[in-house]
Amino acid sequence: MQILLTLAYDGTEYAGWQRQQNAIAVQQRLEEALSALYCQSITTKAPSRTDAGVHALCQRAAFFVDETRIPIGKLPQVLNGYLPRDISVSAAEVVPDSFNPRFDAMYKTYAYSIYNAPTPNPLYSRYSAHEPRSMNVEAMKNAASMLIGQHDFAAFQSTGSSAKNTVREIYALDIITDKPPGMVTMIVTGNGFLYNMVRIIAGTMMYVGIGKLRAHSIPRIILSCDRARAGKTMPPQGLTLLEVGYTKYRQLE
Amino acid sequence: MQILLTLAYDGTEYAGWQRQQNAIAVQQRLEEALSALYCQSITTKAPSRTDAGVHALCQRAAFFVDETRIPIGKLPQVLNGYLPRDISVSAAEVVPDSFNPRFDAMYKTYAYSIYNAPTPNPLYSRYSAHEPRSMNVEAMKNAASMLIGQHDFAAFQSTGSSAKNTVREIYALDIITDKPPGMVTMIVTGNGFLYNMVRIIAGTMMYVGIGKLRAHSIPRIILSCDRARAGKTMPPQGLTLLEVGYTKYRQLE
Repeated sequence: MQILLTLAYDGTEYAGWQRQQNAIAVQQRLEEALSALYCQSITTKAPSRTDAGVHALCQRAAFFVDETRIPIGKLPQVLNGYLPRDISVSAAEVVPDSFNPRFDAMYKTYAYSIYNAPTPNPLYSRYSAHEPRSMNVEAMKNAASMLIGQHDFAAFQSTGSSAKNTVREIYALDIITDKPPGMVTMIVTGNGFLYNMVRIIAGTMMYVGIGKLRAHSIPRIILSCDRARAGKTMPPQGLTLLEVGYTKYRQLE
Repeated sequence: MQILLTLAYDGTEYAGWQRQQNAIAVQQRLEEALSALYCQSITTKAPSRTDAGVHALCQRAAFFVDETRIPIGKLPQVLNGYLPRDISVSAAEVVPDSFNPRFDAMYKTYAYSIYNAPTPNPLYSRYSAHEPRSMNVEAMKNAASMLIGQHDFAAFQSTGSSAKNTVREIYALDIITDKPPGMVTMIVTGNGFLYNMVRIIAGTMMYVGIGKLRAHSIPRIILSCDRARAGKTMPPQGLTLLEVGYTKYRQLE
């Protein structure tokens, strides 16, 4: 049977989600825990390959196992006993064998947080970028509204990416302020994201906020398909994968 | 002249505020930075000696220096260049020589956060305790209201404390929920706190929340002056010093 896990992690100490040769990835730690628990080699598939230093509140990971000795409702608690403190499984459910955690995802939601204050705050620096220049949030909201919809986001992916089709749809892009005071958080939902796309959108919003780009230039940046015209790639620690949806996206009121 | 700094720190890696022999304290790092900056040995005084692992959003620290070469407005940025990433100075002001950062404090505000969910969340574990048993927040609010006012808080200090006078006044004690979802945060303001008092109040609130103590037993616990009757001392990572006030406390609407 196939089991789908929901998990959260603090990405600070990891080389990202995906297993690799010379560094510890979240996937490796999770597969080690599952393999120890079930006494067999287990591999997992996830919908989002978060980068080094990126966090997740609701990442998903699916795996196949024959074993049914552990009741599915107890699996999160049992599994957490095998996992390090910075990875935690919050839910487990049985899914059909045909379910694919990556291709069946209908939308993903990410948050990018920027602490906008003259001096950095050590209590926020693990989970946000810091920008000392004052940001104009109204201009950022204006720019955000122009990114919503289906566009060719080639200008918003890191150079050297291999994606052939760079058209994606952004369903929602909101800017939330002062939760906590001084924090500017961008929440973006889309049907998929190119490599570094959320961090480049965040950098473009930040440039609009500090006046280095104008909100009304966003449509031209999109049309240019030129990475050099968008904002910088923001650092990983401000990014958190908030949700992966397996039903059609519906705007919350 | 005397200078008063406002600083924030992530207490995870420190043995607390106060300088000590065999471990690194925040005070030591700050005094090293000030001494390097001013090329003379500087000592600081703070109103709250936060314990190992406890955080601060607005701790204060005062010191005397002859030097006026660095404009007071630039001092935070310059000083942050000498400080590690987990300590940050946000403000500096000149105060009268007679000012005493500890004895002139009129009130202090602390926050204690408990993440109340079946499984821990790695994104919150650095700054909160975790309680998997469901907590009754209404009962906790009821209990909180009975702690407000001037009382002998002897039952709410760690045994072996040396305080002679254990009477303190709590001005406000609020329980805030679901910011973020699942988080229960206690915000307490008082004219002073006994050793571990906030963490024991938080443990008592938690016991009321899970039904191990009843809200209406709070007055008897206070009157007993018996540490064994209050709740447990909650772990340090959930505690943050939010504010030290040097004017009379006024309830915000």
